[in-house]
Amino acid sequence: MASGPSRPNHLSEDHLEELSSTVRDWQFTHGSLLKAAPYSGKSYAYPIGVSLFPSNFPRRLFESALDLQRIFNQLYSAVANDGVWLYHMLRNQIMNDPASMAAILWNIHTNAISSGITQPVSLGIYRSDYMLHAPTPTDDMSLKQVEFNTYSVAGGSHSNLISQMHSHLAGTGAYQQDPSPLRPSLPANNTIEGIADALSLTHEHYCPVAPDGPSAVLFVVQPNNVNIADERPIEYALNDRQIRCFRVEFGGEIMARTSLDARKALLFHPIYAPEDPVEISVVYHRAGYNVEEYDAAGRACRLHLEVSRAIKCPSILGHLATLKMVQQQLTKRENLSRFMGDEEVETILAVCMPMYPLDDSKEGKKSKEIVRDGTQVKNHVLKPCLEGGGHNIFGGQIPGHLRQLRKEGNTGEDLVLMELIQPPDVRNVLMSPIQGGYSGSVVSELGVFGASMWRSTATRRSQKTDDQEYYEEEDGLREEEGDHSKEEDKERDENILLNRQIGFSFKTKRRSVKEMSVVKGYGCFDSPFLI
Amino acid sequence: MASGPSRPNHLSEDHLEELSSTVRDWQFTHGSLLKAAPYSGKSYAYPIGVSLFPSNFPRRLFESALDLQRIFNQLYSAVANDGVWLYHMLRNQIMNDPASMAAILWNIHTNAISSGITQPVSLGIYRSDYMLHAPTPTDDMSLKQVEFNTYSVAGGSHSNLISQMHSHLAGTGAYQQDPSPLRPSLPANNTIEGIADALSLTHEHYCPVAPDGPSAVLFVVQPNNVNIADERPIEYALNDRQIRCFRVEFGGEIMARTSLDARKALLFHPIYAPEDPVEISVVYHRAGYNVEEYDAAGRACRLHLEVSRAIKCPSILGHLATLKMVQQQLTKRENLSRFMGDEEVETILAVCMPMYPLDDSKEGKKSKEIVRDGTQVKNHVLKPCLEGGGHNIFGGQIPGHLRQLRKEGNTGEDLVLMELIQPPDVRNVLMSPIQGGYSGSVVSELGVFGASMWRSTATRRSQKTDDQEYYEEEDGLREEEGDHSKEEDKERDENILLNRQIGFSFKTKRRSVKEMSVVKGYGCFDSPFLI
Repeated sequence: MASGPSRPNHLSEDHLEELSSTVRDWQFTHGSLLKAAPYSGKSYAYPIGVSLFPSNFPRRLFESALDLQRIFNQLYSAVANDGVWLYHMLRNQIMNDPASMAAILWNIHTNAISSGITQPVSLGIYRSDYMLHAPTPTDDMSLKQVEFNTYSVAGGSHSNLISQMHSHLAGTGAYQQDPSPLRPSLPANNTIEGIADALSLTHEHYCPVAPDGPSAVLFVVQPNNVNIADERPIEYALNDRQIRCFRVEFGGEIMARTSLDARKALLFHPIYAPEDPVEISVVYHRAGYNVEEYDAAGRACRLHLEVSRAIKCPSILGHLATLKMVQQQLTKRENLSRFMGDEEVETILAVCMPMYPLDDSKEGKKSKEIVRDGTQVKNHVLKPCLEGGGHNIFGGQIPGHLRQLRKEGNTGEDLVLMELIQPPDVRNVLMSPIQGGYSGSVVSELGVFGASMWRSTATRRSQKTDDQEYYEEEDGLREEEGDHSKEEDKERDENILLNRQIGFSFKTKRRSVKEMSVVKGYGCFDSPFLI
Repeated sequence: MASGPSRPNHLSEDHLEELSSTVRDWQFTHGSLLKAAPYSGKSYAYPIGVSLFPSNFPRRLFESALDLQRIFNQLYSAVANDGVWLYHMLRNQIMNDPASMAAILWNIHTNAISSGITQPVSLGIYRSDYMLHAPTPTDDMSLKQVEFNTYSVAGGSHSNLISQMHSHLAGTGAYQQDPSPLRPSLPANNTIEGIADALSLTHEHYCPVAPDGPSAVLFVVQPNNVNIADERPIEYALNDRQIRCFRVEFGGEIMARTSLDARKALLFHPIYAPEDPVEISVVYHRAGYNVEEYDAAGRACRLHLEVSRAIKCPSILGHLATLKMVQQQLTKRENLSRFMGDEEVETILAVCMPMYPLDDSKEGKKSKEIVRDGTQVKNHVLKPCLEGGGHNIFGGQIPGHLRQLRKEGNTGEDLVLMELIQPPDVRNVLMSPIQGGYSGSVVSELGVFGASMWRSTATRRSQKTDDQEYYEEEDGLREEEGDHSKEEDKERDENILLNRQIGFSFKTKRRSVKEMSVVKGYGCFDSPFLI
């Protein structure tokens, strides 16, 4: 991994200072920023964490990660189409912990079914995260999945910008006099366009109640979001396609500014002409991923959107598929076989790290064995069912954390234990607004973006089912396992309306730091230098 | 002036809040920002002042301002080509006040002549500023020139962005449901490309000493500049044309990082390969406009650049043409006739407000009369020979200011007195980082950008001249006055290598505020809504 421009050892102080200043100015002029808390009534922003150089990454594995995306799109769309299976996987949480994300979302889902789900089509915008895995220096490197995200996935716009920035720096001679040897190693990143294309195709697919009236995409966002620079560029890219967008806060603001007509069309009421509403084609969720957002207004808002005729990105079932317990179940051959052919199952298993639940199942017993073994546990991470960085428990801290949970009466059934990925040694220079400058060993995470639009084939079954019925269907579910027929494949293919890899993100952190979240200041946006 | 979207009277608080938030996010994501002073080691930026709506402006006068630009380009290039005349106009200052900008620049110019000026070609990037003039509500509005700037002109990038922003807001329905009636009234603004085109053509015109070696444009900038967002986009637009740029601070950094070879080629030494220098084609001055910058290092830097083979944007003579005394002299028919045909002279005079020097000349006597007359003086502004807003003295404060200067032994010969332009009533909503929100009566200033590249015909004469000789040539100058021959026209036309209108800026301030500087927080960037 010695080629490429990431050679901080040869960097003079002066060169570093010049590069930093060039990078900061580029970030200020291209919106590679985070908003700061307003200060004496004024708005400020500061550069988001970035690497000064692209980080080395094997071309072969980069390309295979991109290629994998359509298979993962297919898998998670099939999962989101299978409420029965999802319920089965999440039943413990749904039944035992009504404050859990799984229970809250499931409850909204069943309420939506009672009201009648009017829109069979869903859009998923996914991000599958990978690290390089090389347990010993002599091992061949392989690609391992860190997690799969189906809801409100972020980082696409920032990564798009930083790929552009590194290409700009290389092209203008900021790294070395002659940029030509660097160019072929810096892959183009058009994730903003990729996401906008997926939303735009979905917008076109929507069949409006008022075909001649105005229509628009609704961005559902968090209040006081510091990360508008990851969302706004997608809105602007849709505007460039002559698609209007409205940006409304999750919860009360959605309820105040939108209404449902008799045919469940979701209507947005512009502030200057509330009597002249705009029909919403697509609800693009960029909020509602924290359990804290689901107060009474949050639940009402999510249900209101879910029962509307607008196409949701994604539907609640699509959201449920993002929970860690689901991902853990999808590292098991028997579950994968429910959704995919043998070849795809093997392809997926090859990038999965071993994952275990903390319940009383056979795998649950294995996880308890690992936790008891002081050596084995060091090689694992405990992941809660929460979004964003900062919540994971690593290695030696796991046993104590679990003891504490048990004291508090928590069974830990919403946790999964995953074997740690062992990334190879790569060096870079990072500039983080929180951690300052750093030059040394780093770890990168490649996120591959995918889009999938599908027509639900489960709607009929779901619509006549309540909790009790789902429960009863469990026996049927067991019979179905592994029962993967050609007819089902055909039916599924016909109902997949879009399946694309639409871009990538690339994030890098100091090797000594455990978490990757850039918004929280742990990681930095980066781009791959393909070797 | 009632049509157009700028109708703050009809704006609800909610609409205003939504628009402000949309505007701020757009500014953060498009670099419409000013850098703040670093705070605890971190860099921050905040949105530059902008208007929420475009401001009404008569289409006829907008178009005639654009059309005028080529005539002004020609005039100021001819002035910069005429060191003898410039010396004559600035002689009092040059002789009497060695600390004045005129004296400092003239001194560097004569030193450059002694060393030998090797580059006969100059580039001017100009901005001619206008306001609407309507002394009484029944008067027909006319266009009046506020000032003409030939050195380090700013605002092109910001204005380009804000025109884009207002078009974006109109197009996405932020003002009203149907944007189609607004579109034809929002003229396209491509000033960034216009400036980059001018620099790029000049770069191509430059004949390098090492024709196969690398070459680049040098941006000479101020240290700790908060306004990088006005400069960097020009650099990026040149990069898009495969032209490299280097950004170096005026003064010591220029001396440390550039050298002259035996043929006076200006060489830039990149930080990672100082032994492998890049030949500079064009020196683009965005610093050196304040007299305080001319300490020993500043003077050495300016001379070093001036004697180099690189094409300067602009040369020192081009810089001297920006001084207020020159502009005042160019409101006189007899001076204009030295440089232009009768028709152009009349065209220029029609946009000039009366201006007077404060010396012992005939016009100087007129200015003293005005200052003594309590009524007349209210209608005037006193302009010092300084760049940027904040230095002008208005109306009733003029007599006291002049008394104070006389007490301090200052003759006031570097001041000019100008009749105030009387702009019509226009309304808008402004959002300024310093003054906060404002809705009410505003005044706008249209700046038209021009580029002119010329080959000096005076170089021969200049090169054998020193101060004394210029002085002696005065009699010759008097004979030349008004002596405008067809041969001279032809010679001049052949030596004009480029003459273009390249864009515009548009700034708006509260009517009650005297100064327009946006960087200092007085004014806001805006765009015209043509009516």
